[in-house]
Amino acid sequence: MPEFPTSIGTSDPTTIRLLGHDLAGELLGQVGFGELAFWLAARRRPSAGEVRLFEAVLVSLTDHGFTPTAIAARLTYYSAPDSVQGALAAGILGGGSRFLGVTEDTGRWLHRVLEGLDDAESRSDDDWDAVALEAVRAARAAGEKVPGIGHPVHKEADPRVPVMFAIAEDSGSLGAHLRLFAAVGRVHEQVLGRRLPLNGAGVAGAALADLGLPIELLRAFALLARTAGLIGHLAEERESPIAPAVYAEVDRNAVYVPLPDAGSA
Amino acid sequence: MPEFPTSIGTSDPTTIRLLGHDLAGELLGQVGFGELAFWLAARRRPSAGEVRLFEAVLVSLTDHGFTPTAIAARLTYYSAPDSVQGALAAGILGGGSRFLGVTEDTGRWLHRVLEGLDDAESRSDDDWDAVALEAVRAARAAGEKVPGIGHPVHKEADPRVPVMFAIAEDSGSLGAHLRLFAAVGRVHEQVLGRRLPLNGAGVAGAALADLGLPIELLRAFALLARTAGLIGHLAEERESPIAPAVYAEVDRNAVYVPLPDAGSA
Amino acid sequence: MPEFPTSIGTSDPTTIRLLGHDLAGELLGQVGFGELAFWLAARRRPSAGEVRLFEAVLVSLTDHGFTPTAIAARLTYYSAPDSVQGALAAGILGGGSRFLGVTEDTGRWLHRVLEGLDDAESRSDDDWDAVALEAVRAARAAGEKVPGIGHPVHKEADPRVPVMFAIAEDSGSLGAHLRLFAAVGRVHEQVLGRRLPLNGAGVAGAALADLGLPIELLRAFALLARTAGLIGHLAEERESPIAPAVYAEVDRNAVYVPLPDAGSA
Amino acid sequence: MPEFPTSIGTSDPTTIRLLGHDLAGELLGQVGFGELAFWLAARRRPSAGEVRLFEAVLVSLTDHGFTPTAIAARLTYYSAPDSVQGALAAGILGGGSRFLGVTEDTGRWLHRVLEGLDDAESRSDDDWDAVALEAVRAARAAGEKVPGIGHPVHKEADPRVPVMFAIAEDSGSLGAHLRLFAAVGRVHEQVLGRRLPLNGAGVAGAALADLGLPIELLRAFALLARTAGLIGHLAEERESPIAPAVYAEVDRNAVYVPLPDAGSA
Repeated sequence: MPEFPTSIGTSDPTTIRLLGHDLAGELLGQVGFGELAFWLAARRRPSAGEVRLFEAVLVSLTDHGFTPTAIAARLTYYSAPDSVQGALAAGILGGGSRFLGVTEDTGRWLHRVLEGLDDAESRSDDDWDAVALEAVRAARAAGEKVPGIGHPVHKEADPRVPVMFAIAEDSGSLGAHLRLFAAVGRVHEQVLGRRLPLNGAGVAGAALADLGLPIELLRAFALLARTAGLIGHLAEERESPIAPAVYAEVDRNAVYVPLPDAGSA
Repeated sequence: MPEFPTSIGTSDPTTIRLLGHDLAGELLGQVGFGELAFWLAARRRPSAGEVRLFEAVLVSLTDHGFTPTAIAARLTYYSAPDSVQGALAAGILGGGSRFLGVTEDTGRWLHRVLEGLDDAESRSDDDWDAVALEAVRAARAAGEKVPGIGHPVHKEADPRVPVMFAIAEDSGSLGAHLRLFAAVGRVHEQVLGRRLPLNGAGVAGAALADLGLPIELLRAFALLARTAGLIGHLAEERESPIAPAVYAEVDRNAVYVPLPDAGSA
Repeated sequence: MPEFPTSIGTSDPTTIRLLGHDLAGELLGQVGFGELAFWLAARRRPSAGEVRLFEAVLVSLTDHGFTPTAIAARLTYYSAPDSVQGALAAGILGGGSRFLGVTEDTGRWLHRVLEGLDDAESRSDDDWDAVALEAVRAARAAGEKVPGIGHPVHKEADPRVPVMFAIAEDSGSLGAHLRLFAAVGRVHEQVLGRRLPLNGAGVAGAALADLGLPIELLRAFALLARTAGLIGHLAEERESPIAPAVYAEVDRNAVYVPLPDAGSA
Repeated sequence: MPEFPTSIGTSDPTTIRLLGHDLAGELLGQVGFGELAFWLAARRRPSAGEVRLFEAVLVSLTDHGFTPTAIAARLTYYSAPDSVQGALAAGILGGGSRFLGVTEDTGRWLHRVLEGLDDAESRSDDDWDAVALEAVRAARAAGEKVPGIGHPVHKEADPRVPVMFAIAEDSGSLGAHLRLFAAVGRVHEQVLGRRLPLNGAGVAGAALADLGLPIELLRAFALLARTAGLIGHLAEERESPIAPAVYAEVDRNAVYVPLPDAGSA
């Protein structure tokens, strides 16, 4: 008979243990939700500074207004108001390569560059600029995009970026990924021929990577944050719905375009 | 042309505003993730005490070990490792009437009882006992279950319950729903003929209702908490997978049972 | 060690068996997809007439243009083009009480009325009218809606309805649910005071119930049909996308409405 | 105001049109469900032979017993029996790179090889062998897997494969993708040093590609087929559930493994 190993939870008639701690006696009221989420994902308890940066990242990713995923969640809630879980799941399913992917792509890209280095911690800004320059050149030569730079709305500067760097510095969590990302911001113009701002999704990915969270799951933290945002959208949809108007607008402005063989049957 | 009203987010080239505040200047690093989640859902900023109770509720709901939803998420991640969002969504979709529903059901039930009362705030414990007794009797007469009591494992007492009441009291958020729920715990034996413990999912629902969160969305907060738990399960699945063994165990122990007409074609 | 009973599939190194039959030797090329779907759900092989009615029901439910679910699937595909399964799942999740629910609600409602009768098969149209009249009166007295009647667009008559009745008659599958549904169409005006057309979703539910498919899963057949429709929407979205325009339209016409305490922090 | 072009559906008070045809007058009872699914996806009406091959492909992909996706759907249905759409969506979400991906990967791989050729139609089997040999060598040199060959259970031969080739031949739909796939089956041993069987998922992908369905959506057809299979699993779960036993088995055999810092708080 197989055994199923886990370090997460166990319980018996009188005790519930989570991550090896007594939930009632040691965790409830004593550990924050963000702290617990970090702990579960990283499988180690974060420091106070790490929690501060982590929560700032989550806050920065929670909502971006009427995104396609928020609209999809609202339309699903309108169609199936009996299933809140379905509306949230529909919103989460939009968390793929185009929108939320930037966070993950940036973290992965920086991580890959860093894997080739030794002694990343002791580098100066000039050293980082040299590393970044080589990495951006390599990306360009391979025809790949450098992730985390440029933004359709914040064309000059993304206001989240300097604040996130300051929080990371301040909380003692500024690491190699963020330093390299900053260097990318300084040097990419030399290679790409134009200056693009570092963007908020990118800095979030760099910060999550610096926090030591699993690179392969960076997208998941964007989705955790976005779940809170989606609940806000559903709460608002209950009070002032937009889904019926979105549906009506699309349906009313549908224009039928015949296919080559339509009507020939 | 229709307009789409929202109080959540707006942005322009230099500023991102969330809930009417400058995200970079007023929120990042200054508002916690739990606080923001509450604010978005309740459409008002919570007090520090409310945040404390809310985060305790989320922590209490984050993980319950190898639940069917955690197993489903792990199996989905195993089948489709390219889509973290799909695995999380699959886990969330189990958040229905049987498991996570208790939180919502309890909040709704208490809310319904309270709607019939006026002046709920000034009642004594004896008053609450009388209200609870009548409500439990009415439920019994109607053949309905009283939600939030009894637990398959914690048959005597659920260790989360007293801690949650203490946090609510301590943070100044103990309100009518929790008081009524406590009274249900005191009086139900008179009606049902046996003593059942208040359970953790029920106290979570009562607390969320006392916090003034939308009754119709209580399930959503259980799902937000569970999303963090599911990320923990996916992180663990990457390091020590159980999904292949679950699959193998079920497949290997499949026993074919012919249908009446099988093989007759 | 537990065993897991199943009548669906088994395989060994040389044979794959499905529903007790050799997939390669007895089923592939010899059983239609609709026939197999029916067989799996009903756990008995349908007759040719049953397959004909079942496929007509599926065809009638496959697509209804730019529904909220189709729009949600397209928006999800736009956000996460790497996950076709996520876009389809998002579309399916809209299959709840408001839109696809009519099919299930009608089947359930008719089923409940029929459970109270004996000898349903031998009734005349006049008998059915009497049954329907009583059932509609009872629904009205209880403040419940009679499902399957009325349509926001097809206010006079839903063109699918007479064709579906003809196919059911013609294929020998016209049973008690459809007969009762027809009677509802004849008598409801006496109770409700206005004439509403039977609608296509309702006739689909009645037909699925007459086919002996599980009442609790009627919604699932609407979802199977709709999956084919959603694939059509994704195929069209690839060639002439609407999701970017839907997103832009909603985002551009967002109007910020301050909350009471916004900006006060 | 934007317009939203579509060739799928339109309706007015008296008529519903689908793909340019009168649904009630021209399609219901006259077009099969598989035929309609093909038509919507390919945006052209298939021939009778194409429908035959397409339905055989769907039948071959409908169910593979207790797969991880079937188990996940059953667990989700157990947790949330109120949401059939959620259980189906959870099952669909497992349709990713590991399980259902083979169908898509094989179709894509064959398609890519064929894109480099001209005049594919008139080739002899010897010509195809030469093309396949070069393609398998190139895959091997690039360290890539050749998709569609090998099977964990059917180690010698997959019984679906010869039947699918016969149906394709017989229905006049045997095209370049299937011919190339057959050649891969004949020549790969020369490169890989061992003989692997062509598998059923691979032949399905090759057949779908030969039918001219969109290469980027091949996975979607596997998911359409699987939706029917999942409905069968839910129907069976209602009658003889396995989810409670799967849950109990995993939960009971959970073994707690402490994390390095567990218990230190």
